[in-house]
Amino acid sequence: MNKFSIDQMIKYLEEIFPQIRGKYSILKLENCLSEVQLVATDANLRPGNTISGPTMFELADIAFYLAVISLTGSGTLALTTNVSINFLRKPQRSNLIAVAKIKKSGRQLVVGDVEIFSEDMSQLVAHAIFTYSLSPNRS
Amino acid sequence: MNKFSIDQMIKYLEEIFPQIRGKYSILKLENCLSEVQLVATDANLRPGNTISGPTMFELADIAFYLAVISLTGSGTLALTTNVSINFLRKPQRSNLIAVAKIKKSGRQLVVGDVEIFSEDMSQLVAHAIFTYSLSPNRS
Amino acid sequence: MNKFSIDQMIKYLEEIFPQIRGKYSILKLENCLSEVQLVATDANLRPGNTISGPTMFELADIAFYLAVISLTGSGTLALTTNVSINFLRKPQRSNLIAVAKIKKSGRQLVVGDVEIFSEDMSQLVAHAIFTYSLSPNRS
Amino acid sequence: MNKFSIDQMIKYLEEIFPQIRGKYSILKLENCLSEVQLVATDANLRPGNTISGPTMFELADIAFYLAVISLTGSGTLALTTNVSINFLRKPQRSNLIAVAKIKKSGRQLVVGDVEIFSEDMSQLVAHAIFTYSLSPNRS
Repeated sequence: MNKFSIDQMIKYLEEIFPQIRGKYSILKLENCLSEVQLVATDANLRPGNTISGPTMFELADIAFYLAVISLTGSGTLALTTNVSINFLRKPQRSNLIAVAKIKKSGRQLVVGDVEIFSEDMSQLVAHAIFTYSLSPNRS
Repeated sequence: MNKFSIDQMIKYLEEIFPQIRGKYSILKLENCLSEVQLVATDANLRPGNTISGPTMFELADIAFYLAVISLTGSGTLALTTNVSINFLRKPQRSNLIAVAKIKKSGRQLVVGDVEIFSEDMSQLVAHAIFTYSLSPNRS
Repeated sequence: MNKFSIDQMIKYLEEIFPQIRGKYSILKLENCLSEVQLVATDANLRPGNTISGPTMFELADIAFYLAVISLTGSGTLALTTNVSINFLRKPQRSNLIAVAKIKKSGRQLVVGDVEIFSEDMSQLVAHAIFTYSLSPNRS
Repeated sequence: MNKFSIDQMIKYLEEIFPQIRGKYSILKLENCLSEVQLVATDANLRPGNTISGPTMFELADIAFYLAVISLTGSGTLALTTNVSINFLRKPQRSNLIAVAKIKKSGRQLVVGDVEIFSEDMSQLVAHAIFTYSLSPNRS
C-alpha cells in the first residue's frame, strides 16, 4: 500500500529536497522497497579512482528514506538515527544501484537494510543496516 | 610521531582529493587525533532545515582519514571498511567540528571513533566508530 | 565447496569449543551459508521474559563463525572484528534460528549478515552484519 | 541525579535478573556512567584461549543497561535496539572492566558508548556504541 507513485515521489522530492535533483533516478518504489540509481560524476571519486564512501552512504540513505516515506506518507518527519555500513569492494567509476528493504516498521522506528551494487548488478559493493525514527511533521 | 604537518596535509589533499577544497578546515593534527571543521552551506541541508546525515558522515570520514594517513604517511592506501554512526541531535544550520581519535592501529586495520559537535562544542550531534584497512599504495 | 560436513563440524566444535555443546543445533551448512538453532532455556531470558540480546548475539556469532570456518577450513584462525546488530522484535521464549550468509570473502576479511527468526520463521527478530578477520592458526 | 545506589542496584538486579549473579561486580554508578567488572571463567573462553566476543558483548550490554536504568529508574522498560561493536585486541584470560557512558538521553532513545578494558586498564580491548529504547514498564 504505497503512498506515492514514482512520479509523485519525484515531484515531492523536487519540492522538499531540490539539492539532489539530477543525481539520482528512482527505478522502483514498492511496498517496503526502493531501488535508486546514482549517476556517478567526478565529484564522487576519491583517491584510487574509486567511488567515495560518503557517496555510497548518501545513495543508501536516499534509497532508505524513499522506502520509508513511501510507507509513511509526507505527514511524517523521518530521520536517520543509526547506520552501520560495510564497504565490500572498491567500485570502479560507474553508476551504482541501491536496493533498500524495510524489515520492520514500528510506530516510532523503521529498520531495514540497503545493498549497493555496481550498475550491472554483478557485484555487491556495500551493505548497510538502517534505523530511522518517525515523528509528526510540524513544518 | 606525525608524518604530516597541517600545511603539508592541506597540500597533499589538494593534490589527491581536490573535490573537498574549501569545504573543510583542519584545526588540529596530532598523534592519533584530528579536528576538522565543516563550513556548512545550503547544499548540506535536508528537509527540516537540519544538516543532512550524509554531510555528517562525510565530515566524520574525512576527519578519520586524516588521522589515519597522518599516522601511516602517503605510501599507504587507507580505505574505509566499516562505519557505524549514531545521529544524536538535529544540528541547526551552523559549522560543525569533528574530533577523530584512533583507538587501535594495527598492521592491517585501524580502528577509532569520531565525535561531531556543533561549532560552539556545546552539543554532541553525532558519534561514529570507524574501521579503515591499510594496504600498500600502488598508484 | 565446503570444507566440513555437518557431522565433521560438530566433531570439530566439540574439540575446540566444548562450552557450546547442547545449546545449538546445526541445521544447514552450505557454501557461504549456515543455519543454526538455539535451544532456549531460562538462562537466556531477561527482564520482560524475552530472550536476551547477548543470547541472540552469541547465536548470530556462532552461525557466522560456522559459515566462515566451513569456507576456510580449520587451518585458519577466524576472529570477529566488527558486529552491528539491530534488535527488531522481542522474541517470546522459544527456540530461535539464525541464518548466516557470507557476502564477501577476501583474503583478510570475511563480511556478511545474519538474520535471526523465531522458530516458526514467521518473524524476523534481529538482523546483524558481521566482519571477521582471518589469520593463520598457529595453535 | 541517580535513581539507584550501587547496593540498591544489586538488590534490584537480583530480583529481576538473577541469572547474572556472581558474574559481574558494579564498580561505579554515577550520573550517566557505570563501571562493571566481569569475573572471567572457562565458560567465557573461545578457541585461541581468548575471551569470547559474546562474553564481551554481554558485559558491555549489562554495563550500558545499568547506566540507563540508573537514570530512568525501575518504572521504565529499557530495551537494546542497536549495538555496533569493534573488537580491537584479543584479551588474554583475565577479568575485564566495562566503562559505559550515556551521550544522549531522550524521551524514547538513550545513546552512548562502552569501552572494555583488560583488568589493569592498560589496554582497550573492545569499543561499542549502544542505542536503547525506553517504554513504560507494564509488568
